[in-house]
Amino acid sequence: MFVVNSKSMSKNLLIASTSTVFGSGFLEYLLPQLKKHFEGCKTLLFIPYARPGGISHDAYTNKVGTVFNALNINVRGIHTYSNPVQAVAEADAIFTGGGNTFVLVNTLYQLELMRPLRDVLLSGTPYLGTSAGSNICGLTIHTTNDMPIIYPPSFKTLGVLPFNINPHYLDPKENDTHMGETRETRIKEFHAFNNVPVVGLREGSWLEVTDNTIRLKGKHTARVFEKDLLPYEVQSNTLLDLQ
Amino acid sequence: MFVVNSKSMSKNLLIASTSTVFGSGFLEYLLPQLKKHFEGCKTLLFIPYARPGGISHDAYTNKVGTVFNALNINVRGIHTYSNPVQAVAEADAIFTGGGNTFVLVNTLYQLELMRPLRDVLLSGTPYLGTSAGSNICGLTIHTTNDMPIIYPPSFKTLGVLPFNINPHYLDPKENDTHMGETRETRIKEFHAFNNVPVVGLREGSWLEVTDNTIRLKGKHTARVFEKDLLPYEVQSNTLLDLQ
Repeated sequence: MFVVNSKSMSKNLLIASTSTVFGSGFLEYLLPQLKKHFEGCKTLLFIPYARPGGISHDAYTNKVGTVFNALNINVRGIHTYSNPVQAVAEADAIFTGGGNTFVLVNTLYQLELMRPLRDVLLSGTPYLGTSAGSNICGLTIHTTNDMPIIYPPSFKTLGVLPFNINPHYLDPKENDTHMGETRETRIKEFHAFNNVPVVGLREGSWLEVTDNTIRLKGKHTARVFEKDLLPYEVQSNTLLDLQ
Repeated sequence: MFVVNSKSMSKNLLIASTSTVFGSGFLEYLLPQLKKHFEGCKTLLFIPYARPGGISHDAYTNKVGTVFNALNINVRGIHTYSNPVQAVAEADAIFTGGGNTFVLVNTLYQLELMRPLRDVLLSGTPYLGTSAGSNICGLTIHTTNDMPIIYPPSFKTLGVLPFNINPHYLDPKENDTHMGETRETRIKEFHAFNNVPVVGLREGSWLEVTDNTIRLKGKHTARVFEKDLLPYEVQSNTLLDLQ
């Protein structure tokens, strides 16, 4: 596993549970934050690799372009570069969109992008992740909700957070007749084998990661799971201090 | 991937979506079938390895024992044998219970049980699988619903069915405000990378696999997903002919 670099003092990450909240357009709820987060950036490198079909990488990139053009930021998909490692190294700003986390991680390993991406996130390139693009900021993808439709060479990810994310976090439903495990049970089972804390981010929540602080934002609380502790809620606009 | 042995003419498998349906006891809805399925068996080897904590292997085995004792079948957990490979080879009957599919598959590989288990299932040992124990009867675990809390050495499984199972199959909910993918979307995404058909087994459904026939049983239809075809329903008590 990569070791989190304690010298990294310029992280500038926005790590969101979802790209889209119910009843609102793609990235719409995040627009005021995006404007601030990417201030001064002229171009954004989009990583569409999580998308497992449905729409093409080009179409996905165009969708992102429409949002960012309104902020006077040009978007280009990493899949259009002959040297994606160089594209990451030279990017003004980076956004990794959602889809299937296994597909994303597999592609990042195939193209040897995991390490370069980690390096630029630790050295200050402004980053936005949504869903799968947020999952990869944690230590591993052991707590993704996605179906394992591809077998990646490893479950280890960027480790630019000292914990794992569970995006699209869902509370157990009262009176549910379905016998599948709840999200909380699944994360508890993760802790039978792992010590890494997990932050359940509800749709509409995000983390603002600046220097060495991690702040919860958005209208919801987040649910934090630490091994051998009862899960607890963290209020919006407070710092997360999980090591 | 293992190749399905065309000479296998004595499969005797009961592959269930779940061990428990809402409002009923553990395995209760299956009792009449279990009596018939395990007729003549005096002992049953239970594989509790899917259980990722919560209850111990001993406690899980005792729970199974209570059910099978009523059928005059003694139950012993595979974890109590010093030679689990031999235990599988010599078993009168086998049941693999539910839990986490990644944990189960990882343990089966660690103990080198995948191949011996496949061999006895293809040569007639009566088998019951529920949930994770059913998932492993397919070609791979690419269509499990479970959280990937462990990284197994492979996603390949027993291949005693010519397709994959999606247990606890759930229909999309009307008016759902959650933005996570539906089960149907996830399986469609699987088919962006794989050709293997997937059978979505609803809770209360099971497959009876005898010789070369596979019959859907229980009170529900099953939803079948084949690459490049619209998903379709199969009626209970009819044969599945997927190759």
